[in-house]
Amino acid sequence: MKSRFHIKQEIRVLGIDDSALISDTIMIVGAFFRGGDWLDGVMRSEITRDGMDGTDVIIHMVKASKHYGQIRVIMLDGITYGGFNPIDIVRLNEETGIPVIVVMRSCPDFEKIEAAVKHLSQPEERLRIIYRAGRIIKVVTKDASNPVYIQWAGIDKNDARKIVKLTATRSNVPESIRVAHLIATGIICGESRGKV
Amino acid sequence: MKSRFHIKQEIRVLGIDDSALISDTIMIVGAFFRGGDWLDGVMRSEITRDGMDGTDVIIHMVKASKHYGQIRVIMLDGITYGGFNPIDIVRLNEETGIPVIVVMRSCPDFEKIEAAVKHLSQPEERLRIIYRAGRIIKVVTKDASNPVYIQWAGIDKNDARKIVKLTATRSNVPESIRVAHLIATGIICGESRGKV
Repeated sequence: MKSRFHIKQEIRVLGIDDSALISDTIMIVGAFFRGGDWLDGVMRSEITRDGMDGTDVIIHMVKASKHYGQIRVIMLDGITYGGFNPIDIVRLNEETGIPVIVVMRSCPDFEKIEAAVKHLSQPEERLRIIYRAGRIIKVVTKDASNPVYIQWAGIDKNDARKIVKLTATRSNVPESIRVAHLIATGIICGESRGKV
Repeated sequence: MKSRFHIKQEIRVLGIDDSALISDTIMIVGAFFRGGDWLDGVMRSEITRDGMDGTDVIIHMVKASKHYGQIRVIMLDGITYGGFNPIDIVRLNEETGIPVIVVMRSCPDFEKIEAAVKHLSQPEERLRIIYRAGRIIKVVTKDASNPVYIQWAGIDKNDARKIVKLTATRSNVPESIRVAHLIATGIICGESRGKV
């Protein structure tokens, strides 16, 4: 299948991660990267723990950014933020016009997700958003023994795979996500912590 | 003069910057880097705007860090943080055992500093700390038309110069300081801003 766009080494990527669940308002951090090498900007916003506002907050953060016109891909660290606040990646792609890639460190356990979501408001809507992200493929980045799993919206599967591999320069996850995680945990917890 | 230590490409550096002056408590951010390339950790602490607690807060943040044993150099973005909270680099070096380098984007104007400090508590003590940082040299990093100015404590002048040049990989300032600045302004202001 033909690529939808040319993937440059320095493709501009916004990686987004959330911070620890220590209050009802959860900070999310965006790390704007050139490829897998160079941090070019940092942005921050807040979502509600276990809320339903994550998609709108991210759309607003992206569209309000001075980097909006440059961001070629949005990368999410999983499909739920701040507990079980689900991100609708199809709507995120449609409303920003930017392709979205979800990167997961392990294959999600949907049985567990369904059980957890049952105890929250609007469980069907949450599951609808989660399943809307579509199928999952495995991508080997730095290390064959430590693959990641991805979903995508508004981008060809092979382009998504290429971008994830290209930007995972320091670990098995794209550098923008690794750094967004370091910043989010460092700021909220006082010092950054690892993630498996 | 003989180098005090071997300077590796991936020398571990902690760069510290402060955030905008939007309240009486100012967030400072430490970006722990491998050389000029790789962010390995983020830490955060708070100082008082125009206070006198900056040195103690930084000493505590550094010694409490899980990276403490690895940090080979502390880099400061100027000698005052959070307004005119002066950092005693001699004491910071002595109490942490880690060399300190101050990096400035322009040569400080001591006449202006003395005038500003006069309106604060303990003006003599503030000036004593500021002058204790010793002499200033110019270092050309990426671009001859955009040099930086440095002061140092607990390290040989030539080693300090070498480390600043080695770690200024993306701009005229060491990468750890550039990134600490992006994080501090991004988190406090919602989106990072440049600095001249």
